[in-house]
Amino acid sequence: MQTSPLAPKSYPTLKAIAGVRLGTAESGIRYAGRTDLLVAELAEGTTVAGVLTKSLTASASVLACRDSLISGKARLLVVNSGNSNAFTGKAGVNSVERIRAAASKLFNCDKKNIFTSSTGVIGEKLPDEKITSALPAIPLSETAWDEAARAIMTTDTYPKLATMTAQIEGTTVTINGIAKGSGMIAPDMATMLAYVFTDAKIPTGELQKILSEENESTFNSITVDGDTSTSDTLLLFATGKADNKNGDYSDFRRSLHILLHDLALQIVKDGEGAEKLITITAAGAESKKAAKNIAMSIANSPLVKTAIAASDANWGRIVMAVGKAGEKADRDKLSISIGGVSVAINGEADANYSESQIASHMQGRDIIINVDVGIGNESATVYTCDLTHRYIDINGSYRT
Amino acid sequence: MQTSPLAPKSYPTLKAIAGVRLGTAESGIRYAGRTDLLVAELAEGTTVAGVLTKSLTASASVLACRDSLISGKARLLVVNSGNSNAFTGKAGVNSVERIRAAASKLFNCDKKNIFTSSTGVIGEKLPDEKITSALPAIPLSETAWDEAARAIMTTDTYPKLATMTAQIEGTTVTINGIAKGSGMIAPDMATMLAYVFTDAKIPTGELQKILSEENESTFNSITVDGDTSTSDTLLLFATGKADNKNGDYSDFRRSLHILLHDLALQIVKDGEGAEKLITITAAGAESKKAAKNIAMSIANSPLVKTAIAASDANWGRIVMAVGKAGEKADRDKLSISIGGVSVAINGEADANYSESQIASHMQGRDIIINVDVGIGNESATVYTCDLTHRYIDINGSYRT
Repeated sequence: MQTSPLAPKSYPTLKAIAGVRLGTAESGIRYAGRTDLLVAELAEGTTVAGVLTKSLTASASVLACRDSLISGKARLLVVNSGNSNAFTGKAGVNSVERIRAAASKLFNCDKKNIFTSSTGVIGEKLPDEKITSALPAIPLSETAWDEAARAIMTTDTYPKLATMTAQIEGTTVTINGIAKGSGMIAPDMATMLAYVFTDAKIPTGELQKILSEENESTFNSITVDGDTSTSDTLLLFATGKADNKNGDYSDFRRSLHILLHDLALQIVKDGEGAEKLITITAAGAESKKAAKNIAMSIANSPLVKTAIAASDANWGRIVMAVGKAGEKADRDKLSISIGGVSVAINGEADANYSESQIASHMQGRDIIINVDVGIGNESATVYTCDLTHRYIDINGSYRT
Repeated sequence: MQTSPLAPKSYPTLKAIAGVRLGTAESGIRYAGRTDLLVAELAEGTTVAGVLTKSLTASASVLACRDSLISGKARLLVVNSGNSNAFTGKAGVNSVERIRAAASKLFNCDKKNIFTSSTGVIGEKLPDEKITSALPAIPLSETAWDEAARAIMTTDTYPKLATMTAQIEGTTVTINGIAKGSGMIAPDMATMLAYVFTDAKIPTGELQKILSEENESTFNSITVDGDTSTSDTLLLFATGKADNKNGDYSDFRRSLHILLHDLALQIVKDGEGAEKLITITAAGAESKKAAKNIAMSIANSPLVKTAIAASDANWGRIVMAVGKAGEKADRDKLSISIGGVSVAINGEADANYSESQIASHMQGRDIIINVDVGIGNESATVYTCDLTHRYIDINGSYRT
């Protein structure tokens, strides 16, 4: 598959994180000639936080992760691509159990501290014996980040990696993250997966609070087609090896935010058929939630997305999307700008606006839409991509 | 534009309705060489009921109709195509006022009993003087139903008409309806409009109750792309000329339901780029509302719609759409059938199912999807169309 035109020009090199060892393998679940299995071994004492799909048809691994998060500790992560083990009933639950039982013996750790994820086709039984037989032979390394990011890819056209450092009470800690898309979407290869590792020492409760809040403005603010996966998983592992003092995590939070935001945008830019990144800010809303709903209504509108694919500044469709969001908006104060140019103001077309002013902006790769609904002071920004012929090609022909 | 492959093979001939006279004209608002203005004169005593868009950026005409419905009486309907008069601020409100003032003199009726609709481009000022200057010269006829249906079209590829009769307390009444799409959607030509006329004598309150309820399972159960117009309008006019006794309206209600259902499906079948009609029933839900939300979640999923466009029975995406609907569903009892063939049962792929069983169904024009979520006894059926390359062509190139 052709690499997304929005792919990064270069990939960052991720350094070792004390307490994390990575390994990958070709277990042969579905793909030939590429890795499809990732193992991350985590030092004793590693705390973990997670955000999981709210889908009511969540996969067996998501349900198991939900249980494991209660303990707040992690020793092992096992991820396979090619099969999502979703909608596989009791058989799927048993598969996860067998993987955890085998890994627990091999890595000498408690089953409940093992986190699994699966991404790929829905509704086919996971051949878990391929995973359990591959596990013993996987060599572990502190620096196999690129390999790790590649092993979890499905329809992604490039691996997604990011790294940051942060200060906690005078100690420098490192944060590494990998993710896969391609969207919330990815056909029946359903899943957004992201794993973040740090050597920071942060208690589980605090770690979960930080992750949940920063997730809201990053991964929870992107959309490709509004479809929600049965397997969406974001996990943050903190090995504690930096041995920092507990205290002020604000710099860690800032760095984590930048890293999550970076990974989230990499996923949108690899959205199926994406040719443009669209940044939508809704301001003047009654609440943050209302602002986000309005921005998401615009971001998920097929009419807005097809217009942008055609470089058409069709702001009437933005008006429509604001109207259908169901949140308070003052029609007579509604304003819209595209690429910084006012196109509509106080509920009417801006008399000074002509399409030629934003023609070159619309032709570009980065489209910026700002809306003010004239009610309050809250705002939210979300990110999406355009809806192109390639989306239909990918999703119509995927299984054939 | 090429006529939809789902267009009806023939159009019904609608008979006169006592108390209704129709006229059309070429007012030249936007289109050349075709009619764009419809007037329907209604006899004194005509009662009216209506259902209007819930969009918070509703057009000036919708706001005026909302006011006029309070009186419960109608004498005139004026509809233009080519310009929606939406997002036109105070100027738009003034346009509606000028049209009503001129029509009120011409037709010798109260302004508040005049209903207007506009459908077409959003955000451009309505040249209302073209309408008011065309009005005096329009010849009225009792049988110009086909002309009426054509005058209100925008991106529709065929006119939409339906007719029924019904019995009220021994008297036969007639119901005629016209509608336009093409979808809730129709690019910046936003609007679903439908007008229904009957000679039945039905008090306003009763008429509104019947219309609101029957709208829920007909027009409110269709979707093309989940986008909601700023101008959606459904009006039902009852002239009372049949002079039936008040009493049992159940047969009228049944006939009205069939007529509304017919018009609603005609709109879906003319959805932009539509090549297949998809009928989705969600059963086993906690409530009717939950059932409809689940069915709509499937109907609005771009992943489901692109798969069906490619004749791919990708039921994993149906599972995903059930999961994201946010309504109660028992993963371990979830069942799915396509074209009457069970593909998944009790939360797992059906062991007896093979894709060849439904290959010919998937190749057809009518796709039937049934889902049971295993919670309760309520069900709902919704209708949509597939998502094809032509949708992107139409919506990307519309204004250029």
